Amino acid sequence: MAEQVRAIRTRRTILTAAARIFEVHGYQAATIAQILKEAGTTKGALYFHFVSKEDLAQAVLAEQDHSIQVPHRVSKVQEIVDIVMLHAHRLQTDPIVRAAVRLTMDQQSEGLDRSGPFLRWVEVGVPLLEEAQARGELLPHAVPAETAAVIVGSFAGIQSMSQAICEYRDLVTRVSAMLRHVLPSAVAPSILASLDLAETRGARVYEEALQASLAQQAQEALDTVG
Amino acid sequence: MAEQVRAIRTRRTILTAAARIFEVHGYQAATIAQILKEAGTTKGALYFHFVSKEDLAQAVLAEQDHSIQVPHRVSKVQEIVDIVMLHAHRLQTDPIVRAAVRLTMDQQSEGLDRSGPFLRWVEVGVPLLEEAQARGELLPHAVPAETAAVIVGSFAGIQSMSQAICEYRDLVTRVSAMLRHVLPSAVAPSILASLDLAETRGARVYEEALQASLAQQAQEALDTVG
Repeated sequence: MAEQVRAIRTRRTILTAAARIFEVHGYQAATIAQILKEAGTTKGALYFHFVSKEDLAQAVLAEQDHSIQVPHRVSKVQEIVDIVMLHAHRLQTDPIVRAAVRLTMDQQSEGLDRSGPFLRWVEVGVPLLEEAQARGELLPHAVPAETAAVIVGSFAGIQSMSQAICEYRDLVTRVSAMLRHVLPSAVAPSILASLDLAETRGARVYEEALQASLAQQAQEALDTVG
Repeated sequence: MAEQVRAIRTRRTILTAAARIFEVHGYQAATIAQILKEAGTTKGALYFHFVSKEDLAQAVLAEQDHSIQVPHRVSKVQEIVDIVMLHAHRLQTDPIVRAAVRLTMDQQSEGLDRSGPFLRWVEVGVPLLEEAQARGELLPHAVPAETAAVIVGSFAGIQSMSQAICEYRDLVTRVSAMLRHVLPSAVAPSILASLDLAETRGARVYEEALQASLAQQAQEALDTVG
Protein backbone atom coordinates (compact mmCIF):
# COMPACT_ATOMS: atom_id res chain seq x y z
CA MET A 1 0.00 0.00 0.00
CA ALA A 2 2.76 2.45 1.01
CA GLU A 3 4.55 1.42 -2.19
CA GLN A 4 1.45 2.20 -4.25
CA VAL A 5 1.14 5.65 -2.68
CA ARG A 6 4.83 6.27 -3.42
CA ALA A 7 4.33 5.22 -7.06
CA ILE A 8 1.36 7.61 -7.46
CA ARG A 9 3.43 10.40 -5.94
CA THR A 10 6.42 9.72 -8.23
CA ARG A 11 4.13 9.66 -11.28
CA ARG A 12 2.68 13.02 -10.22
CA THR A 13 6.17 14.52 -9.68
CA ILE A 14 7.26 13.42 -13.17
CA LEU A 15 4.03 14.72 -14.72
CA THR A 16 4.41 18.13 -13.07
CA ALA A 17 8.04 18.33 -14.21
CA ALA A 18 7.07 17.36 -17.78
CA ALA A 19 4.30 19.99 -17.77
CA ARG A 20 6.81 22.66 -16.74
CA ILE A 21 9.37 21.62 -19.39
CA PHE A 22 6.73 21.43 -22.16
CA GLU A 23 5.40 24.85 -21.15
CA VAL A 24 8.84 26.49 -21.27
CA HIS A 25 10.43 24.75 -24.28
CA GLY A 26 7.48 23.43 -26.31
CA TYR A 27 6.89 19.78 -27.19
CA GLN A 28 9.45 19.48 -29.99
CA ALA A 29 12.40 21.06 -28.17
CA ALA A 30 11.71 19.38 -24.81
CA THR A 31 13.93 16.39 -23.91
CA ILE A 32 13.55 13.47 -21.49
CA ALA A 33 16.87 14.57 -19.92
CA GLN A 34 15.40 18.00 -19.05
CA ILE A 35 12.30 16.38 -17.53
CA LEU A 36 14.45 13.97 -15.45
CA LYS A 37 16.52 16.87 -14.11
CA GLU A 38 13.39 18.91 -13.29
CA ALA A 39 11.71 15.93 -11.57
CA GLY A 40 14.85 14.79 -9.72
CA THR A 41 14.02 11.12 -10.47
CA THR A 42 15.87 8.29 -12.18
CA LYS A 43 15.49 7.21 -15.81
CA GLY A 44 14.17 3.85 -14.51
CA ALA A 45 11.39 5.54 -12.52
CA LEU A 46 10.34 7.66 -15.50
CA TYR A 47 10.25 4.75 -17.95
CA PHE A 48 8.35 2.64 -15.38
CA HIS A 49 5.46 5.15 -15.67
CA PHE A 50 5.85 6.52 -19.22
CA VAL A 51 7.19 4.76 -22.31
CA SER A 52 8.12 7.89 -24.31
CA LYS A 53 8.02 11.69 -24.58
CA GLU A 54 4.73 11.40 -26.49
CA ASP A 55 3.29 9.22 -23.73
CA LEU A 56 4.24 11.94 -21.20
CA ALA A 57 2.64 14.64 -23.35
CA GLN A 58 -0.55 12.60 -23.73
CA ALA A 59 -0.69 12.18 -19.93
CA VAL A 60 -0.34 15.97 -19.49
CA LEU A 61 -3.06 16.50 -22.13
CA ALA A 62 -5.38 14.08 -20.30
CA GLU A 63 -5.11 16.18 -17.11
CA GLN A 64 -7.32 18.94 -18.55
CA ASP A 65 -10.15 16.45 -19.16
CA HIS A 66 -11.03 15.15 -15.73
CA SER A 67 -9.67 15.44 -12.16
CA ILE A 68 -12.33 17.97 -10.99
CA GLN A 69 -16.01 17.06 -11.26
CA VAL A 70 -18.54 19.86 -11.72
CA PRO A 71 -21.66 19.23 -9.53
CA HIS A 72 -24.81 18.31 -11.47
CA ARG A 73 -27.24 21.19 -12.08
CA VAL A 74 -30.97 21.32 -12.69
CA SER A 75 -30.20 23.30 -15.86
CA LYS A 76 -27.87 21.37 -18.15
CA VAL A 77 -26.91 24.63 -19.89
CA GLN A 78 -25.73 25.97 -16.51
CA GLU A 79 -23.70 22.76 -16.09
CA ILE A 80 -21.94 23.47 -19.40
CA VAL A 81 -21.34 27.09 -18.35
CA ASP A 82 -19.87 25.78 -15.08
CA ILE A 83 -17.52 23.37 -16.88
CA VAL A 84 -16.31 26.17 -19.17
CA MET A 85 -15.89 28.76 -16.40
CA LEU A 86 -14.17 26.21 -14.11
CA HIS A 87 -11.72 25.39 -16.90
CA ALA A 88 -10.97 29.11 -17.36
CA HIS A 89 -10.37 29.42 -13.60
CA ARG A 90 -8.07 26.37 -13.57
CA LEU A 91 -6.12 27.74 -16.55
CA GLN A 92 -5.43 30.86 -14.53
CA THR A 93 -4.34 28.88 -11.45
CA ASP A 94 -3.06 25.32 -12.30
CA PRO A 95 0.29 24.87 -14.14
CA ILE A 96 -0.53 21.32 -15.41
CA VAL A 97 -3.81 22.49 -16.97
CA ARG A 98 -1.95 25.44 -18.51
CA ALA A 99 0.73 23.13 -19.97
CA ALA A 100 -1.98 20.79 -21.34
CA VAL A 101 -3.72 23.65 -23.14
CA ARG A 102 -0.41 24.96 -24.52
CA LEU A 103 0.44 21.52 -25.91
CA THR A 104 -3.01 21.39 -27.52
CA MET A 105 -2.49 24.77 -29.15
CA ASP A 106 1.15 24.13 -30.18
CA GLN A 107 0.88 23.73 -33.95
CA GLN A 108 4.59 22.86 -34.06
CA SER A 109 4.08 19.66 -32.00
CA GLU A 110 4.87 17.32 -34.87
CA GLY A 111 4.17 13.68 -34.21
CA LEU A 112 1.80 14.59 -31.36
CA ASP A 113 -1.88 14.08 -32.14
CA ARG A 114 -3.45 17.34 -30.87
CA SER A 115 -6.97 16.57 -32.07
CA GLY A 116 -7.70 14.46 -28.94
CA PRO A 117 -8.40 17.27 -26.45
CA PHE A 118 -10.63 19.16 -28.94
CA LEU A 119 -12.64 16.01 -29.67
CA ARG A 120 -12.81 14.96 -25.99
CA TRP A 121 -14.16 18.38 -24.96
CA VAL A 122 -16.78 18.14 -27.72
CA GLU A 123 -17.69 14.68 -26.34
CA VAL A 124 -18.20 16.27 -22.90
CA GLY A 125 -20.46 18.97 -24.35
CA VAL A 126 -22.65 17.00 -26.77
CA PRO A 127 -24.48 14.69 -24.28
CA LEU A 128 -25.08 17.62 -21.92
CA LEU A 129 -26.53 19.72 -24.76
CA GLU A 130 -28.62 16.74 -25.90
CA GLU A 131 -29.99 16.40 -22.38
CA ALA A 132 -30.66 20.15 -22.35
CA GLN A 133 -32.52 19.74 -25.65
CA ALA A 134 -34.61 16.84 -24.29
CA ARG A 135 -35.61 19.04 -21.33
CA GLY A 136 -36.65 21.91 -23.60
CA GLU A 137 -33.74 24.18 -22.60
CA LEU A 138 -32.66 24.78 -26.21
CA LEU A 139 -34.26 26.64 -29.11
CA PRO A 140 -36.00 24.35 -31.64
CA HIS A 141 -33.36 24.73 -34.37
CA ALA A 142 -30.31 24.15 -32.10
CA VAL A 143 -27.90 21.34 -33.14
CA PRO A 144 -26.02 20.08 -30.04
CA ALA A 145 -22.94 18.81 -31.95
CA GLU A 146 -22.55 22.14 -33.76
CA THR A 147 -23.00 24.32 -30.67
CA ALA A 148 -20.57 22.13 -28.68
CA ALA A 149 -17.91 22.46 -31.43
CA VAL A 150 -18.35 26.26 -31.58
CA ILE A 151 -17.94 26.59 -27.79
CA VAL A 152 -14.85 24.33 -27.68
CA GLY A 153 -13.17 26.04 -30.65
CA SER A 154 -14.02 29.55 -29.44
CA PHE A 155 -12.75 28.82 -25.93
CA ALA A 156 -9.43 27.58 -27.36
CA GLY A 157 -8.88 30.85 -29.23
CA ILE A 158 -10.12 33.14 -26.45
CA GLN A 159 -7.63 31.58 -24.02
CA SER A 160 -4.81 31.96 -26.55
CA MET A 161 -5.73 35.62 -27.12
CA SER A 162 -5.87 36.30 -23.38
CA GLN A 163 -2.52 34.56 -22.86
CA ALA A 164 -0.87 36.56 -25.67
CA ILE A 165 -2.26 39.92 -24.54
CA CYS A 166 -1.99 39.74 -20.74
CA GLU A 167 -0.91 36.25 -19.55
CA TYR A 168 -4.52 35.20 -18.73
CA ARG A 169 -5.34 38.17 -16.48
CA ASP A 170 -8.57 38.94 -18.39
CA LEU A 171 -9.42 35.32 -19.24
CA VAL A 172 -12.64 34.94 -17.21
CA THR A 173 -13.93 38.29 -18.55
CA ARG A 174 -13.32 37.20 -22.15
CA VAL A 175 -14.81 33.72 -21.64
CA SER A 176 -17.91 35.18 -19.98
CA ALA A 177 -18.33 37.57 -22.96
CA MET A 178 -17.96 34.63 -25.39
CA LEU A 179 -20.70 32.65 -23.62
CA ARG A 180 -23.00 35.71 -23.60
CA HIS A 181 -22.50 35.96 -27.38
CA VAL A 182 -22.82 32.25 -28.26
CA LEU A 183 -25.56 30.94 -25.95
CA PRO A 184 -28.50 33.22 -27.00
CA SER A 185 -28.49 31.63 -30.47
CA ALA A 186 -29.06 28.13 -29.05
CA VAL A 187 -30.68 28.47 -25.60
CA ALA A 188 -34.36 29.25 -24.77
CA PRO A 189 -34.92 32.78 -23.34
CA SER A 190 -36.40 31.52 -20.06
CA ILE A 191 -33.22 29.49 -19.40
CA LEU A 192 -30.94 32.36 -20.47
CA ALA A 193 -32.60 34.63 -17.89
CA SER A 194 -31.67 32.27 -15.04
CA LEU A 195 -28.07 31.49 -16.06
CA ASP A 196 -25.16 32.61 -13.89
CA LEU A 197 -22.49 33.78 -16.39
CA ALA A 198 -20.62 35.97 -13.89
CA GLU A 199 -16.84 36.23 -14.18
CA THR A 200 -16.51 34.85 -10.60
CA ARG A 201 -18.50 31.70 -11.46
CA GLY A 202 -15.44 29.50 -12.14
CA ALA A 203 -13.77 30.25 -8.78
CA ARG A 204 -17.05 29.55 -6.94
CA VAL A 205 -17.60 26.24 -8.77
CA TYR A 206 -13.99 25.28 -7.94
CA GLU A 207 -14.54 25.87 -4.19
CA GLU A 208 -17.82 23.95 -4.32
CA ALA A 209 -16.26 20.96 -6.14
CA LEU A 210 -13.30 20.96 -3.73
CA GLN A 211 -15.59 20.91 -0.64
CA ALA A 212 -17.68 18.10 -2.17
CA SER A 213 -14.56 16.04 -2.86
CA LEU A 214 -13.20 16.57 0.69
CA ALA A 215 -16.58 15.63 2.21
CA GLN A 216 -16.62 12.45 0.12
CA GLN A 217 -13.08 11.54 1.23
CA ALA A 218 -14.03 12.09 4.89
CA GLN A 219 -17.11 9.88 4.47
CA GLU A 220 -15.00 7.14 2.88
CA ALA A 221 -12.50 7.34 5.75
CA LEU A 222 -15.37 7.04 8.29
CA ASP A 223 -16.79 4.04 6.40
CA THR A 224 -13.39 2.32 6.49
CA VAL A 225 -13.04 2.91 10.27
CA GLY A 226 -16.63 1.83 10.97
CA MET B 1 12.76 50.94 -61.76
CA ALA B 2 13.88 47.43 -62.78
CA GLU B 3 16.04 47.42 -59.66
CA GLN B 4 13.04 48.33 -57.50
CA VAL B 5 10.99 45.49 -58.99
CA ARG B 6 13.89 43.10 -58.34
CA ALA B 7 14.13 44.27 -54.71
CA ILE B 8 10.38 43.71 -54.19
CA ARG B 9 10.69 40.24 -55.71
CA THR B 10 13.70 39.33 -53.51
CA ARG B 11 11.86 40.55 -50.40
CA ARG B 12 8.88 38.38 -51.35
CA THR B 13 11.09 35.31 -51.95
CA ILE B 14 12.74 35.73 -48.53
CA LEU B 15 9.36 36.23 -46.85
CA THR B 16 7.88 33.10 -48.47
CA ALA B 17 10.95 31.09 -47.43
CA ALA B 18 10.73 32.42 -43.86
CA ALA B 19 7.01 31.54 -43.75
CA ARG B 20 7.79 27.96 -44.80
CA ILE B 21 10.59 27.56 -42.24
CA PHE B 22 8.52 29.07 -39.40
CA GLU B 23 5.62 26.79 -40.30
CA VAL B 24 7.75 23.63 -40.27
CA HIS B 25 10.09 24.33 -37.34
CA GLY B 26 8.29 26.95 -35.24
CA TYR B 27 9.67 30.38 -34.39
CA GLN B 28 12.12 29.34 -31.67
CA ALA B 29 13.79 26.50 -33.57
CA ALA B 30 13.94 28.31 -36.94
CA THR B 31 17.32 29.78 -37.94
CA ILE B 32 18.41 32.48 -40.41
CA ALA B 33 20.65 29.86 -42.06
CA GLN B 34 17.63 27.64 -42.82
CA ILE B 35 15.72 30.61 -44.27
CA LEU B 36 18.71 31.60 -46.46
CA LYS B 37 18.99 28.05 -47.80
CA GLU B 38 15.23 27.88 -48.49
CA ALA B 39 15.23 31.30 -50.23
CA GLY B 40 18.45 30.68 -52.18
CA THR B 41 19.63 34.27 -51.47
CA THR B 42 22.70 35.76 -49.85
CA LYS B 43 23.05 36.89 -46.26
CA GLY B 44 23.55 40.43 -47.57
CA ALA B 45 20.24 40.41 -49.45
CA LEU B 46 18.40 39.12 -46.40
CA TYR B 47 19.87 41.68 -44.02
CA PHE B 48 19.19 44.45 -46.54
CA HIS B 49 15.44 43.75 -46.11
CA PHE B 50 15.21 42.38 -42.57
CA VAL B 51 17.37 43.20 -39.53
CA SER B 52 16.66 40.03 -37.51
CA LYS B 53 14.66 36.81 -37.17
CA GLU B 54 12.04 38.71 -35.16
CA ASP B 55 11.80 41.33 -37.92
CA LEU B 56 11.15 38.53 -40.42
CA ALA B 57 8.49 37.01 -38.19
CA GLN B 58 6.79 40.40 -37.74
CA ALA B 59 6.75 40.83 -41.54
CA VAL B 60 5.12 37.38 -41.94
CA LEU B 61 2.61 38.30 -39.20
CA ALA B 62 1.78 41.56 -41.00
CA GLU B 63 0.85 39.64 -44.18
CA GLN B 64 -2.40 38.36 -42.62
CA ASP B 65 -3.56 41.94 -41.94
CA HIS B 66 -3.75 43.53 -45.37
CA SER B 67 -2.81 42.63 -48.97
CA ILE B 68 -6.41 41.83 -50.05
CA GLN B 69 -9.09 44.48 -49.68
CA VAL B 70 -12.69 43.36 -49.13
CA PRO B 71 -15.10 45.50 -51.24
CA HIS B 72 -17.29 47.89 -49.22
CA ARG B 73 -20.82 46.65 -48.51
CA VAL B 74 -24.09 48.45 -47.79
CA SER B 75 -24.35 46.32 -44.63
CA LYS B 76 -21.28 46.77 -42.42
CA VAL B 77 -22.08 43.47 -40.69
CA GLN B 78 -21.84 41.74 -44.10
CA GLU B 79 -18.47 43.47 -44.58
CA ILE B 80 -17.22 41.92 -41.33
CA VAL B 81 -18.58 38.51 -42.37
CA ASP B 82 -16.74 38.91 -45.69
CA ILE B 83 -13.44 39.78 -43.97
CA VAL B 84 -13.76 36.73 -41.69
CA MET B 85 -14.81 34.31 -44.46
CA LEU B 86 -12.09 35.65 -46.81
CA HIS B 87 -9.47 35.08 -44.10
CA ALA B 88 -10.72 31.49 -43.63
CA HIS B 89 -10.47 30.94 -47.39
CA ARG B 90 -6.94 32.40 -47.51
CA LEU B 91 -5.87 30.21 -44.58
CA GLN B 92 -6.93 27.18 -46.60
CA THR B 93 -5.08 28.35 -49.72
CA ASP B 94 -2.14 30.74 -48.93
CA PRO B 95 1.02 29.42 -47.20
CA ILE B 96 2.15 32.88 -45.93
CA VAL B 97 -1.22 33.53 -44.27
CA ARG B 98 -1.07 30.03 -42.76
CA ALA B 99 2.44 30.64 -41.40
CA ALA B 100 1.35 34.02 -39.97
CA VAL B 101 -1.55 32.44 -38.09
CA ARG B 102 0.67 29.62 -36.81
CA LEU B 103 3.19 32.15 -35.48
CA THR B 104 0.34 34.00 -33.76
CA MET B 105 -0.90 30.81 -32.12
CA ASP B 106 2.59 29.49 -31.19
CA GLN B 107 2.65 29.94 -27.42
CA GLN B 108 6.29 28.80 -27.44
CA SER B 109 7.42 31.83 -29.50
CA GLU B 110 9.40 33.41 -26.69
CA GLY B 111 10.65 36.91 -27.36
CA LEU B 112 8.06 37.38 -30.13
CA ASP B 113 5.16 39.67 -29.24
CA ARG B 114 2.13 37.68 -30.43
CA SER B 115 -0.47 40.13 -29.14
CA GLY B 116 -0.13 42.34 -32.26
CA PRO B 117 -2.25 40.30 -34.71
CA PHE B 118 -5.03 39.80 -32.14
CA LEU B 119 -5.14 43.53 -31.38
CA ARG B 120 -4.86 44.55 -35.05
CA TRP B 121 -7.78 42.30 -36.02
CA VAL B 122 -9.83 43.82 -33.19
CA GLU B 123 -8.90 47.26 -34.57
CA VAL B 124 -10.25 46.20 -37.98
CA GLY B 125 -13.52 45.02 -36.45
CA VAL B 126 -14.33 47.81 -33.98
CA PRO B 127 -14.79 50.74 -36.44
CA LEU B 128 -16.87 48.54 -38.76
CA LEU B 129 -19.11 47.46 -35.87
CA GLU B 130 -19.36 51.08 -34.68
CA GLU B 131 -20.48 52.09 -38.16
CA ALA B 132 -22.96 49.20 -38.15
CA GLN B 133 -24.24 50.48 -34.80
CA ALA B 134 -24.62 54.04 -36.13
CA ARG B 135 -26.67 52.67 -39.05
CA GLY B 136 -28.97 50.72 -36.73
CA GLU B 137 -27.64 47.31 -37.78
CA LEU B 138 -26.91 46.20 -34.19
CA LEU B 139 -29.15 45.39 -31.24
CA PRO B 140 -29.41 48.24 -28.68
CA HIS B 141 -27.25 46.53 -26.01
CA ALA B 142 -24.40 45.51 -28.38
CA VAL B 143 -20.88 46.67 -27.45
CA PRO B 144 -18.70 46.83 -30.60
CA ALA B 145 -15.36 46.34 -28.78
CA GLU B 146 -16.66 43.27 -26.96
CA THR B 147 -18.24 41.64 -30.02
CA ALA B 148 -15.10 42.30 -32.09
CA ALA B 149 -12.90 40.64 -29.43
CA VAL B 150 -15.21 37.60 -29.23
CA ILE B 151 -15.14 37.14 -33.03
CA VAL B 152 -11.33 37.51 -33.23
CA GLY B 153 -10.67 35.15 -30.30
CA SER B 154 -13.21 32.58 -31.48
CA PHE B 155 -11.85 32.59 -35.02
CA ALA B 156 -8.33 31.94 -33.68
CA GLY B 157 -9.47 28.85 -31.80
CA ILE B 158 -11.78 27.52 -34.53
CA GLN B 159 -8.91 27.62 -37.05
CA SER B 160 -6.60 25.83 -34.58
CA MET B 161 -9.25 23.15 -33.97
CA SER B 162 -9.82 22.66 -37.72
CA GLN B 163 -6.06 22.45 -38.33
CA ALA B 164 -5.59 19.86 -35.55
CA ILE B 165 -8.53 17.70 -36.61
CA CYS B 166 -8.31 17.74 -40.42
CA GLU B 167 -5.65 20.20 -41.69
CA TYR B 168 -8.23 22.96 -42.41
CA ARG B 169 -10.52 20.84 -44.62
CA ASP B 170 -13.63 21.80 -42.59
CA LEU B 171 -12.49 25.35 -41.75
CA VAL B 172 -15.13 27.33 -43.69
CA THR B 173 -17.91 25.09 -42.29
CA ARG B 174 -16.72 25.70 -38.72
CA VAL B 175 -16.25 29.46 -39.21
CA SER B 176 -19.71 29.79 -40.76
CA ALA B 177 -21.19 27.92 -37.75
CA MET B 178 -19.31 30.24 -35.36
CA LEU B 179 -20.72 33.36 -37.07
CA ARG B 180 -24.25 31.90 -37.00
CA HIS B 181 -23.83 31.41 -33.24
CA VAL B 182 -22.19 34.76 -32.37
CA LEU B 183 -23.96 37.30 -34.63
CA PRO B 184 -27.59 36.82 -33.48
CA SER B 185 -26.69 38.14 -30.02
CA ALA B 186 -25.44 41.48 -31.44
CA VAL B 187 -27.12 42.03 -34.84
CA ALA B 188 -30.69 43.23 -35.56
CA PRO B 189 -32.99 40.48 -36.93
CA SER B 190 -33.73 42.36 -40.20
CA ILE B 191 -29.98 42.49 -40.96
CA LEU B 192 -29.46 38.84 -39.91
CA ALA B 193 -32.09 37.76 -42.44
CA SER B 194 -30.20 39.35 -45.33
CA LEU B 195 -26.67 38.17 -44.42
CA ASP B 196 -24.79 35.74 -46.66
CA LEU B 197 -23.03 33.36 -44.24
CA ALA B 198 -22.61 30.53 -46.76
CA GLU B 199 -19.48 28.38 -46.59
CA THR B 200 -18.59 29.42 -50.17
CA ARG B 201 -18.68 33.15 -49.29
CA GLY B 202 -14.91 33.48 -48.71
CA ALA B 203 -13.96 32.01 -52.10
CA ARG B 204 -16.46 34.29 -53.88
CA VAL B 205 -15.20 37.42 -52.06
CA TYR B 206 -11.62 36.41 -52.98
CA GLU B 207 -12.51 36.21 -56.70
CA GLU B 208 -14.37 39.53 -56.51
CA ALA B 209 -11.46 41.29 -54.77
CA LEU B 210 -8.97 39.82 -57.24
CA GLN B 211 -11.00 41.03 -60.26
CA ALA B 212 -11.34 44.50 -58.71
CA SER B 213 -7.59 44.69 -58.12
CA LEU B 214 -6.79 43.57 -61.71
CA ALA B 215 -9.27 46.11 -63.15
CA GLN B 216 -7.63 48.84 -61.08
CA GLN B 217 -4.15 47.85 -62.30
CA ALA B 218 -5.37 47.87 -65.93
CA GLN B 219 -6.90 51.34 -65.44
CA GLU B 220 -3.64 52.62 -63.92
CA ALA B 221 -1.68 51.21 -66.89
CA LEU B 222 -4.10 52.94 -69.33
CA ASP B 223 -3.75 56.22 -67.42
CA THR B 224 0.05 55.99 -67.68
CA VAL B 225 -0.08 55.32 -71.44
CA GLY B 226 -2.73 58.03 -71.99
